Amino acid sequence: MTKSVTLAIDAMGGDAGVEATIPGCALVLKSDPTLKFKLYGDEGQIRTVLSKYPALKAASEIFHTDSYVKSDERPGVALRTGRNSSMRLAINAVSDGEADCVISSGNTGALMAMAKMVLKCLPEIRRPAIASVLPSQTGRTVMLDLGANLMCDSEMLVQFALMGAVFAKISEGHERPRIGLLNVGSEDMKGHEELRATHAILSRVKMPGTYKGFVEGNDIPLGTVDVVVTDGFTGNIALKTAEGVGKLSQHYLRTTFKSSPLAMLGGLLALPALKKLKAKVDPRLYNGGMFLGLDGVCVKSHGSADAIGFANAVKVAANLIRNDFNKRVADELHKLTSQESFFASELEQN
Amino acid sequence: MTKSVTLAIDAMGGDAGVEATIPGCALVLKSDPTLKFKLYGDEGQIRTVLSKYPALKAASEIFHTDSYVKSDERPGVALRTGRNSSMRLAINAVSDGEADCVISSGNTGALMAMAKMVLKCLPEIRRPAIASVLPSQTGRTVMLDLGANLMCDSEMLVQFALMGAVFAKISEGHERPRIGLLNVGSEDMKGHEELRATHAILSRVKMPGTYKGFVEGNDIPLGTVDVVVTDGFTGNIALKTAEGVGKLSQHYLRTTFKSSPLAMLGGLLALPALKKLKAKVDPRLYNGGMFLGLDGVCVKSHGSADAIGFANAVKVAANLIRNDFNKRVADELHKLTSQESFFASELEQN
Repeated sequence: MTKSVTLAIDAMGGDAGVEATIPGCALVLKSDPTLKFKLYGDEGQIRTVLSKYPALKAASEIFHTDSYVKSDERPGVALRTGRNSSMRLAINAVSDGEADCVISSGNTGALMAMAKMVLKCLPEIRRPAIASVLPSQTGRTVMLDLGANLMCDSEMLVQFALMGAVFAKISEGHERPRIGLLNVGSEDMKGHEELRATHAILSRVKMPGTYKGFVEGNDIPLGTVDVVVTDGFTGNIALKTAEGVGKLSQHYLRTTFKSSPLAMLGGLLALPALKKLKAKVDPRLYNGGMFLGLDGVCVKSHGSADAIGFANAVKVAANLIRNDFNKRVADELHKLTSQESFFASELEQN
Repeated sequence: MTKSVTLAIDAMGGDAGVEATIPGCALVLKSDPTLKFKLYGDEGQIRTVLSKYPALKAASEIFHTDSYVKSDERPGVALRTGRNSSMRLAINAVSDGEADCVISSGNTGALMAMAKMVLKCLPEIRRPAIASVLPSQTGRTVMLDLGANLMCDSEMLVQFALMGAVFAKISEGHERPRIGLLNVGSEDMKGHEELRATHAILSRVKMPGTYKGFVEGNDIPLGTVDVVVTDGFTGNIALKTAEGVGKLSQHYLRTTFKSSPLAMLGGLLALPALKKLKAKVDPRLYNGGMFLGLDGVCVKSHGSADAIGFANAVKVAANLIRNDFNKRVADELHKLTSQESFFASELEQN
């Protein structure tokens, strides 16, 4: 029997607010009718959209609040002034045991700050990380951290590798995910001290995956590994650079197909194939920044996500709950820290 | 009258060695017949290829050595054992005043280590940086540092901004280049301390360009600014990620045009336009990592560069010499450090 999952939804988050979140939930419910929803936000707005989705209405409870976190609000301000915001109430539902996970398209910094404060980290996990999935030449690559921690020490990076591997198993179905550590070269002596220390530890311990050593920026789109581990500063810049170059390629292609009548005809003939390509790299399929390492599941949907994008973020969250993501991370962490070689290499570094 | 430029060429560098470097020099000489070449490497190999290019032969001197730096040699080892290598002798020619600049397709780390030791930095310049040019939606973007300095303080980053701006003026023809500082967000309080300190200085001083504040990864391909300033770790990863995503896009496109007979026909019709696009993003047009900040001009060509790619690197070097790049950097640095606001903001930071 499928375990029933209750989702706390920040209905007000994202550029489209309830127009994306409610239809998104309705979409997921179609494929997974056991889900229950707790919707946080303006009751009037929620009811208006919800009236079009009777099945979702029947599976939902509404919790009214007229406060919400603005997209450009500083995390510190949101923490202080957003105690009754839809985002905060949805997070509280998880910490109070009333929901299994929280999904929001709202302000990333505020969501991370609130989730960290309310849910706290899993025991032994130093800091949560933001993970996401990117398209690659061989499939899909999980990358973390994407911006939660600008500076990371080796213990944090080892924990990110572990969480990324468990995530890749559950969400991407990799039996033994290949793990790579992002660096400026693949030789052992490359990079700064924290990276070399992380490399030394990962090279010795048993992980829920196979450590493949250092990887470089081009390995992310190449799909050399299934999990790319890095600090939040580098990860954020690599992710946004990759997204930007993807858009540049699309821009070049559009310009090319408009450049002559022959090219236009060619583009028209190739349109069905080009549409398939577009569907394959559809950012909505890669939607959802997973906040890994919190004592509770929290998924950040892209602010510009539409219903399909939001539905994907909800699916990822429900899947993590069903597969006991946090318990598996805790178990793997326990296995890791009971390995003698873990401490051996740690001592050597200190 | 055009100033005559003498180029010291590491003829043995790169995957193709003399087969790329010599034809590359011959190509440049066609468009710029006043150039003089000093070719360093295996005399037999050089003469064999040179015999096909009588004009280049007449403009060249050969300096024989049978030692060369291997592509995977550690910089420290290359420094100690490569004293008679083609790379080292070519660099020496610049420091001895026998050549104006040096161009090599060899091992980047070894080239930087040798160039730094032999040529030294320009007075007042703390550390050299590697700069390169990337295609963007609005044209071409200069980015530095791409890997010479993994950790950078604010003084180094300010100097990189200055050198990048002078380079963008000379090589890209921007009258007032727009300068951006790479970060994980565009708000003033984002990023780590060194970045905020650099931002504070750049926001106040007069630069040989217009400082536009923080930019994010996606701004590189978007072309929001003409010069993107960052540390060598982040720059290297952003550059390689961008190159990788570019290749992934090409891979997707090839697969798409092979996916059905209709798509193949479409691709065929669009072929002339697609070829124009390919020419526009041809990596050979973006070839050359410029080592900025050395007391001498040193350009690194890509290891896989062919004759056209190598010729572009040589052109960039000759252009920097003709336009007194180093003198202009020194002048701008003097102007910068004579500004009261430069010290005011420095004091504030300390």
